[in-house]
Amino acid sequence: MFNPEIFYSESAKSMKASVIRELLKLTRKPGIISFAGGLPAPETFPAEKIKEITSSLIETKGSLMMQYGPTEGDPDLKEQILDYLKEDNPDVELTQDNILVTTASQQGLDIIGKLFINPGDSIMVGLPSYLGALQAFNAYRCEFIGAPLDDNGILTDEIEKIIKERKKNNLSIPKFIYVIPDFQNPAGICMSLERRKALIKIAETYNITIIEDSPYKELRYEGKSIPSILSLDKNGHVISLFTFSKTMLPGLRLGWAVSRNTSYIQKLTIIKQAVDLCTPPFTQAIAAEFLKRGFLKSQIKNNVAFYKQKQKAMLEVLDKYMPKLEGLKWTKPEGGMFLWLTLPEHMNADELFVKAVDEKVAYVIGSAFYCNGKGQNTMRINFSYPTLAEIEEGIKRLANVIEKNAGQPKERSK
Amino acid sequence: MFNPEIFYSESAKSMKASVIRELLKLTRKPGIISFAGGLPAPETFPAEKIKEITSSLIETKGSLMMQYGPTEGDPDLKEQILDYLKEDNPDVELTQDNILVTTASQQGLDIIGKLFINPGDSIMVGLPSYLGALQAFNAYRCEFIGAPLDDNGILTDEIEKIIKERKKNNLSIPKFIYVIPDFQNPAGICMSLERRKALIKIAETYNITIIEDSPYKELRYEGKSIPSILSLDKNGHVISLFTFSKTMLPGLRLGWAVSRNTSYIQKLTIIKQAVDLCTPPFTQAIAAEFLKRGFLKSQIKNNVAFYKQKQKAMLEVLDKYMPKLEGLKWTKPEGGMFLWLTLPEHMNADELFVKAVDEKVAYVIGSAFYCNGKGQNTMRINFSYPTLAEIEEGIKRLANVIEKNAGQPKERSK
Repeated sequence: MFNPEIFYSESAKSMKASVIRELLKLTRKPGIISFAGGLPAPETFPAEKIKEITSSLIETKGSLMMQYGPTEGDPDLKEQILDYLKEDNPDVELTQDNILVTTASQQGLDIIGKLFINPGDSIMVGLPSYLGALQAFNAYRCEFIGAPLDDNGILTDEIEKIIKERKKNNLSIPKFIYVIPDFQNPAGICMSLERRKALIKIAETYNITIIEDSPYKELRYEGKSIPSILSLDKNGHVISLFTFSKTMLPGLRLGWAVSRNTSYIQKLTIIKQAVDLCTPPFTQAIAAEFLKRGFLKSQIKNNVAFYKQKQKAMLEVLDKYMPKLEGLKWTKPEGGMFLWLTLPEHMNADELFVKAVDEKVAYVIGSAFYCNGKGQNTMRINFSYPTLAEIEEGIKRLANVIEKNAGQPKERSK
Repeated sequence: MFNPEIFYSESAKSMKASVIRELLKLTRKPGIISFAGGLPAPETFPAEKIKEITSSLIETKGSLMMQYGPTEGDPDLKEQILDYLKEDNPDVELTQDNILVTTASQQGLDIIGKLFINPGDSIMVGLPSYLGALQAFNAYRCEFIGAPLDDNGILTDEIEKIIKERKKNNLSIPKFIYVIPDFQNPAGICMSLERRKALIKIAETYNITIIEDSPYKELRYEGKSIPSILSLDKNGHVISLFTFSKTMLPGLRLGWAVSRNTSYIQKLTIIKQAVDLCTPPFTQAIAAEFLKRGFLKSQIKNNVAFYKQKQKAMLEVLDKYMPKLEGLKWTKPEGGMFLWLTLPEHMNADELFVKAVDEKVAYVIGSAFYCNGKGQNTMRINFSYPTLAEIEEGIKRLANVIEKNAGQPKERSK
């Protein structure tokens, strides 16, 4: 067989099969309880409603939903999205021109990479940050600048310090700052309102675009919702990405990019046209009808009730089973799907992974979410997919693995 | 509003709203007969079958089709695609590893661009060639090398001559050669078997990848099917793109990349993961079931019968109404959706467009399909979408516009 590898682009050469995918293969053994996925629970899927909607739609707008559609997205779906956004962002004036329907948020990330990144351009992300975003941007060969997080989200003071430092040293400042303000993947924490405002101020001061990726915002189990960064953006520095993957179902692969600044949306639309012409009109019609019938609101209510008990159970069993170790801690997310566990400094979650799998429990190694290769003593734990019984048994196993390996000096732990 | 344009990538800056899209807006007037689209006729869409399949699938595999799926594609769909490919390519040994499901062919083109093209790399395309492919590749900032076509497809002798010339002059040779061998968009012509074999030989001699884009192969109304380039590829130089858009329906946005050479498919899968994680499992499940029940074959039979009469009618009325002018000619495609009309050398189809729209008939200007800006005296005419009555009336109008403007010297025609 011809070996084409030397003819690949620099971009393709730099893209490797993700470590996570390889590790996840290990978790496909019988009896393993996995906290590694990021999947919504199938029990939440509104199968009956989708079935009924699809049947009636094929009768009423069959030929429209089966034909090619506009790159911008189905106008009916965009209309529904506008209504939906209105509730959370009552003061933001938006029209169809402010929205581009995408093949879920991941496509939004890809076309945003294409919109901004020349090879070598810097962009800023959280430490840690969503792996899929790192992969999407990496394909355009950017330089990542990491900014640390605390319990109130990404450290905006730190961001400004880094930017000032780079300006002083005549280094390029980031083309955009990528944040997941609500129940961050992987850390599960929310950006405070003050930080969101500070981020907007940085955007305005330094002419930087903010990418707000917010797939989990509606999955809040406690506390009060915080205004979206979109709603704080007066001068058009923000592109926000939303998705139905966690509120309705992931299998339709539907999301949207929205900005007060239509010039972003226009250019993203031109880019999307070359990428896939349009997102399936078939799935868009289903989602539009789902919203039109008011099903999304009740669906979100159900999902919140369903996941809330899992989040509660997860936090309870962590308290119950985890050993008392100096430095061992985890976040207490008020929503979303993940929490973030930090091991004592001397421990290594990458190395612990194989031992955990031997004990039939799995997580995602935290270092995968660090653009700078750090985070070896961290892990992401998902609570949306496992059952309550699995949550208890799995955390018991994980606590046991951590305890057994806590005392071993690093040299011997491999 | 913040003006972000100076921060856009070179790629984004080079992408403009397509001229065609702007021209097509002119055609949205009442009473216009448009031969400009490339749409399948909605009468062919198997609405009832899709409705029934979707209902029964949601009952039997609801949670699977509503969940995230593998980037590679739904294994059930890939199984069906393998069976389907077998018929046309009985001697090609393929497994699931040879196939990647894509959001129709357009996504295949995008990720192939990402796989191969560094800014400035050259790639080879037909003169003319599919506009969507030119746009997809252009986003990666390639240099286009055009090779002319005749009635037997792209001129392989010419391709080899260009490659030799470039080697002699120490210029890079193309990373890949992009062809649409069956009922080419826009020209409607087929590559002969000899040319296909010659292309494979060029690929092997010069270590070049061939991209075979074949959305229309099954829509043959006359003559004998010609073996796919995929089937002639012994050493893994070919990536072929197929789609259900023209045989089943476009609204599901489903296609696939296939190659004997799994190293292409592996890398394209990694690229696709960063681009959109996966194509909707929901639509993939529907397509898989459609194939499993044997509906695609009968659907293709229906489509062929339906389009054949349109193709026949189009050729008849062209003969009947077109003026006898030196140099005025059109292709006689044996399948597909388009034919290609060449005006006398001194005429300009770009300029004629506005006059045609005034006379309530529209086409696509041929120059849009030329990577080198030529082809001003050509146009693409679609016959799959208009009704038989529209075909007759529209061609009458078009013939009239051509005749009225044929005598005008070029200087005065603007």
